[in-house]
Amino acid sequence: MRYEYQVDLLEVSLLLVAMAEQARTAMRDASTALLTADREIADGVLHKDAETDATHRLVEEKVCELLARQAPVAADLRLLITALHIAGDLARMGDLAEHVAKTALRRMPAVAVPEELAPVIRDMASVCDRMAEKIGQVLAASDAKGAAQLERDDDAVDELQRQLFALMLGAAWRHGVEQAVDGALLGRFYERFADHAVKAGQHVVYLVTGYQAPMS
Amino acid sequence: MRYEYQVDLLEVSLLLVAMAEQARTAMRDASTALLTADREIADGVLHKDAETDATHRLVEEKVCELLARQAPVAADLRLLITALHIAGDLARMGDLAEHVAKTALRRMPAVAVPEELAPVIRDMASVCDRMAEKIGQVLAASDAKGAAQLERDDDAVDELQRQLFALMLGAAWRHGVEQAVDGALLGRFYERFADHAVKAGQHVVYLVTGYQAPMS
Repeated sequence: MRYEYQVDLLEVSLLLVAMAEQARTAMRDASTALLTADREIADGVLHKDAETDATHRLVEEKVCELLARQAPVAADLRLLITALHIAGDLARMGDLAEHVAKTALRRMPAVAVPEELAPVIRDMASVCDRMAEKIGQVLAASDAKGAAQLERDDDAVDELQRQLFALMLGAAWRHGVEQAVDGALLGRFYERFADHAVKAGQHVVYLVTGYQAPMS
Repeated sequence: MRYEYQVDLLEVSLLLVAMAEQARTAMRDASTALLTADREIADGVLHKDAETDATHRLVEEKVCELLARQAPVAADLRLLITALHIAGDLARMGDLAEHVAKTALRRMPAVAVPEELAPVIRDMASVCDRMAEKIGQVLAASDAKGAAQLERDDDAVDELQRQLFALMLGAAWRHGVEQAVDGALLGRFYERFADHAVKAGQHVVYLVTGYQAPMS
């Protein structure tokens, strides 16, 4: 790989690291807003989503510029297409954080999550936070090991989603339909966030090692 | 634009038309399976999703091959990146049809949708079907007019989703939490399908006219 091209690719990677950090912060803030009914934090998530979208556009522009200027072939070309996939997944993770923040806002000043569900949601938020962190670390340090753990984290999120549904559909549920609907959608937002983190991770492994991830 | 390049681009477009048709059929079948609790049709949706993924891979390979062989610049390059976006949205639409089919399967032999919700779900399915059809038509006929209508269709789907929620959260709801949770998730699957159709449509307009769609 040409030196100049490597530098360009590094620049793209740094933009992706920034996006991973933005998605992580967004979901962490959205979860805090959700569990504490904090309007200011929730509003902040909505405002900051524009930044993630702007970084996404920068990645696309940079990749297009590279494709045009360097006309890379074969493996180098695949790497750039992979960067686009990663950016897409990270942008989607930011969108899902926005959905969580909007759910929180819709119920304020009440807390959208009844206390029985709060521990499970907190755990989902915590695993999702770790997943977004790993993507950033793997991108920044070109260390593929962290990405391999993402699938186990994803299994943990799926299991937490099952727990969430069991609580809402159990005989002891006393909050009615509206909060169950909110709970179901929230569970899905975290589960989708984790799914996109896994996909991004697989692509990141390819980006940093050249090992081909199965296409999703 | 060089003639050879135009032919290549046409080939990519035809693959996208095939994907649009696959996504449309998948959601139509999934909706039928959902409303009639037809296991065979629902199973068919799950099996056929692999075909959509295979076509998605073909688009990516074709685009990479084109980037490598033709080394296009500027507008030509943007078009190919746009084709990747469209393929991504269409693949996601296929996934959402799969989610609908899985929801149908989970409740069989019962029908997952209570009769009060069936008309709204049927309308959502019908608008989504029209949207997927338009994407295919616009791609096949390079006519941007149909794509412009997609946003109105999307508004219709959003309104139907609101109706769905009003039914489940209303005082007359007598089906309990589990069916409301299913209804909420189903509403979201159709709503997301419509969103991706709008995004795909914006990109299709760019592909066939060169007019830049706002990035999502």
